[in-house]
Amino acid sequence: MRNLTLLTDLYQLTMGQGYFNEGRHEEIAVFDVFFRPNALITYSVAAGMEQVADYLEQLQFSEEDIAYLRSLGCFTEEFLAYLARLRFTGDVTSVREGEIVFPYEPILSVKAPMIQAQLVETAILTFVNHQTLIATKASKIVDEAGPTVMEFGLRRAQGADAGIYGARAAIIGGCAGTSNVYAGKLFGVPVSGTMAHSWVMNFPDELTAFRAYAKSFPEGCLLLVDTYDTLRSGVPNAIRVFRELRAAGREPKGIRLDSGDLAYLSKEARKMLDDAGFPNAIICASGDLDENSIASLKAQGAKIDTWGVGTKLITSADLPALGGVYKLAAVFENGREIPKIKLSDTTEKITNPGEKEVYRIYDKKTEKALADYIVRAGETIDERQPLEIFHPVETWKRMRITGFSSRKLREPLMKAGKRVRETLPLRAHAAYLAAEKKRFWEEYLRRDMPHIYKVDLSPALHALKTDMVRRGKGE
Amino acid sequence: MRNLTLLTDLYQLTMGQGYFNEGRHEEIAVFDVFFRPNALITYSVAAGMEQVADYLEQLQFSEEDIAYLRSLGCFTEEFLAYLARLRFTGDVTSVREGEIVFPYEPILSVKAPMIQAQLVETAILTFVNHQTLIATKASKIVDEAGPTVMEFGLRRAQGADAGIYGARAAIIGGCAGTSNVYAGKLFGVPVSGTMAHSWVMNFPDELTAFRAYAKSFPEGCLLLVDTYDTLRSGVPNAIRVFRELRAAGREPKGIRLDSGDLAYLSKEARKMLDDAGFPNAIICASGDLDENSIASLKAQGAKIDTWGVGTKLITSADLPALGGVYKLAAVFENGREIPKIKLSDTTEKITNPGEKEVYRIYDKKTEKALADYIVRAGETIDERQPLEIFHPVETWKRMRITGFSSRKLREPLMKAGKRVRETLPLRAHAAYLAAEKKRFWEEYLRRDMPHIYKVDLSPALHALKTDMVRRGKGE
Repeated sequence: MRNLTLLTDLYQLTMGQGYFNEGRHEEIAVFDVFFRPNALITYSVAAGMEQVADYLEQLQFSEEDIAYLRSLGCFTEEFLAYLARLRFTGDVTSVREGEIVFPYEPILSVKAPMIQAQLVETAILTFVNHQTLIATKASKIVDEAGPTVMEFGLRRAQGADAGIYGARAAIIGGCAGTSNVYAGKLFGVPVSGTMAHSWVMNFPDELTAFRAYAKSFPEGCLLLVDTYDTLRSGVPNAIRVFRELRAAGREPKGIRLDSGDLAYLSKEARKMLDDAGFPNAIICASGDLDENSIASLKAQGAKIDTWGVGTKLITSADLPALGGVYKLAAVFENGREIPKIKLSDTTEKITNPGEKEVYRIYDKKTEKALADYIVRAGETIDERQPLEIFHPVETWKRMRITGFSSRKLREPLMKAGKRVRETLPLRAHAAYLAAEKKRFWEEYLRRDMPHIYKVDLSPALHALKTDMVRRGKGE
Repeated sequence: MRNLTLLTDLYQLTMGQGYFNEGRHEEIAVFDVFFRPNALITYSVAAGMEQVADYLEQLQFSEEDIAYLRSLGCFTEEFLAYLARLRFTGDVTSVREGEIVFPYEPILSVKAPMIQAQLVETAILTFVNHQTLIATKASKIVDEAGPTVMEFGLRRAQGADAGIYGARAAIIGGCAGTSNVYAGKLFGVPVSGTMAHSWVMNFPDELTAFRAYAKSFPEGCLLLVDTYDTLRSGVPNAIRVFRELRAAGREPKGIRLDSGDLAYLSKEARKMLDDAGFPNAIICASGDLDENSIASLKAQGAKIDTWGVGTKLITSADLPALGGVYKLAAVFENGREIPKIKLSDTTEKITNPGEKEVYRIYDKKTEKALADYIVRAGETIDERQPLEIFHPVETWKRMRITGFSSRKLREPLMKAGKRVRETLPLRAHAAYLAAEKKRFWEEYLRRDMPHIYKVDLSPALHALKTDMVRRGKGE
């Protein structure tokens, strides 16, 4: 594993030396990671926590790192000696991977000595922002396509990690597999792929190319049929080879369409395959797809069984950054919490102060989620009493909830610098997401004009925030 | 360095086994990397070739890789044994990093045994697509801002590599430095950064926070002035601390604005700093910037000296994938070239067949670039004879060029599997780009409605292509 200790912004280190010089570097601080609303995102799917834990466990400046920092000429020897000994000793609490999350709720919090908590900000945001972005995009695509989406985007990914961890996040978001062999090995997830146009171009004719492929791969034979002319050449040649396979006792897998009018071509190809006696041969489609084009193809009655989705998934093309932030929520002086708030003229940009917990409230009868509820750390919810929730800004919007159950949305990830969460296979995260989706009314998760899911504050948290805003300053 | 041999699409390996079974896996093939036109891109800046060479040099399946491939159940032992011995033995020719490139021209070509040339397609595209994308975006931003742009995007990058190699590409594209310490160390490029809002929030008041920072960093003191109220609190407090610094014999660096109306705030802050006797204190601006907002701020007379650009640079937010492709151009049978072409109903999607070279033609008098000229491999250009160039589709658009010089745009990167190109510092690539930009009429490079730069084919290449299209088939 690469040591990514230097994967940080320089200002984390200059601030670190500042705190060190002030003698405040080991004051305990709490920072929250959360997202702000974005019109393109109905809900998000959390991911990347495993990489956060990997990174924090191996946090350690090498001698070479220290020598490099010394060469910058802005750090003192005392501070560099301190950095050389530094390890991550803090606590991290977070939602699990595959959890459905919403704006403003702290999906991950770091409680650690100030200097550590600052140092790790950048990498934590990089991992969580990226993987949550791609898991969310994958989930949106799977919502339209169903669970038969393959991630094919490596060649258009923003570097190797974007391909590798993007594939990881895509699986968490519900993709059935990836073309990325490196990710397949690293995460033990299904890989798939058959042939490119270059294979077909590399033989004297299409039929010869198909026959050669079927000879090498008589099992699971899937042929790319659009190199020359899909309906006049590709599908008829595929059917010819499928018949030869069947005569040899094998059943073909199907065909792949990668260009042209996928609605029309898939319907025509379906008829041709059915008429030829191959109703079980699947049609896989690929080529610049995303949730919108897939929804449109489905609405047009396209006969497509599986989907290969590349560029627009692996880059989240319509929204290539999630913009998650990491904000100071509290510091501790002699064990006493001093809540912190970031003020702004824009109400939505004012942070929620203090150490917090997040609960998801479910209706006991329907078992559907009703709201998320952010409380001050230590507050409990009494499920036997009615719960009155209210909009954090438009406070006259209120709802009294009875007959509910509540679930803590976050659990410890690291305690005193040690990972305390079990590593699960990615399919467990994907299965969790699929199950949790069923606990939401679909109106909350739908792609267009969703009903806004409530993320409310407890009266105690709301009072703290209101008071701090009124006093108009940081503490 | 991570071994990225498995960083490929599964179909490269299934096709590899197919060629292996056919006994054709060691036939020499030529593949070209090129980009198609995109309305958002006037010109591109090539980058990523160094990572291509790193990757190809270390290409080797580990025992663990082979065991993983075996576990997939679709590869034969003969083929796996072959893979275990496989190294990259081919040639790679490419433009240099920092070269200005245009659609359709092969910026990198691989000539290697078929199985190798296929295997490396995915990773080559990943590296070249990503870094060319970010170098291009950086160059566009620098075209508007001037050479004082800092790359600040790591936390919003699509994973660690996107941050690290994105920073690398940004420097090639003309950025002056990065906040990314890992990239700073790895590539020996300038790093910068001072403080975040959390620093200011962590002290009883802004003045105390500024004083503490100035105490730790009396040299190059740059203060973030927008935490509470930029003009009523931030700038006056900064000026107070700057005076204290000066009284102690130091000159401050300046201030940073990260929110609000940057045009208005910078003009007001400039006046305040000037009036206070700090005309050399710089104003740095950051916050969701890109080439468009920077051009607008400049047009409004904003008084901004340096620019911190994050999300929109590191993700190339308006175009997060370049879509470069890797297409079969030729195979060799017994040393004889057999050109290959990919046909399409869309004229622009038909590839240029055969092994090729690219020349840039300059006017001898003005020393400005006139056109790029793609020829068949082995064709030479006689600078003493007039050169007639013509549009490759609208062939009646012709131009006769005399008094020109020509330059081969591509040089060997790898020969017989060995790197043959010297590794240059990134500032050399950036300087090259800046110099080459001056050799283009600005009409070709401007952001809006650029004059389309000519990329034409030699008569021999045009005749080959036309003939192959007429015959309508691969060979």
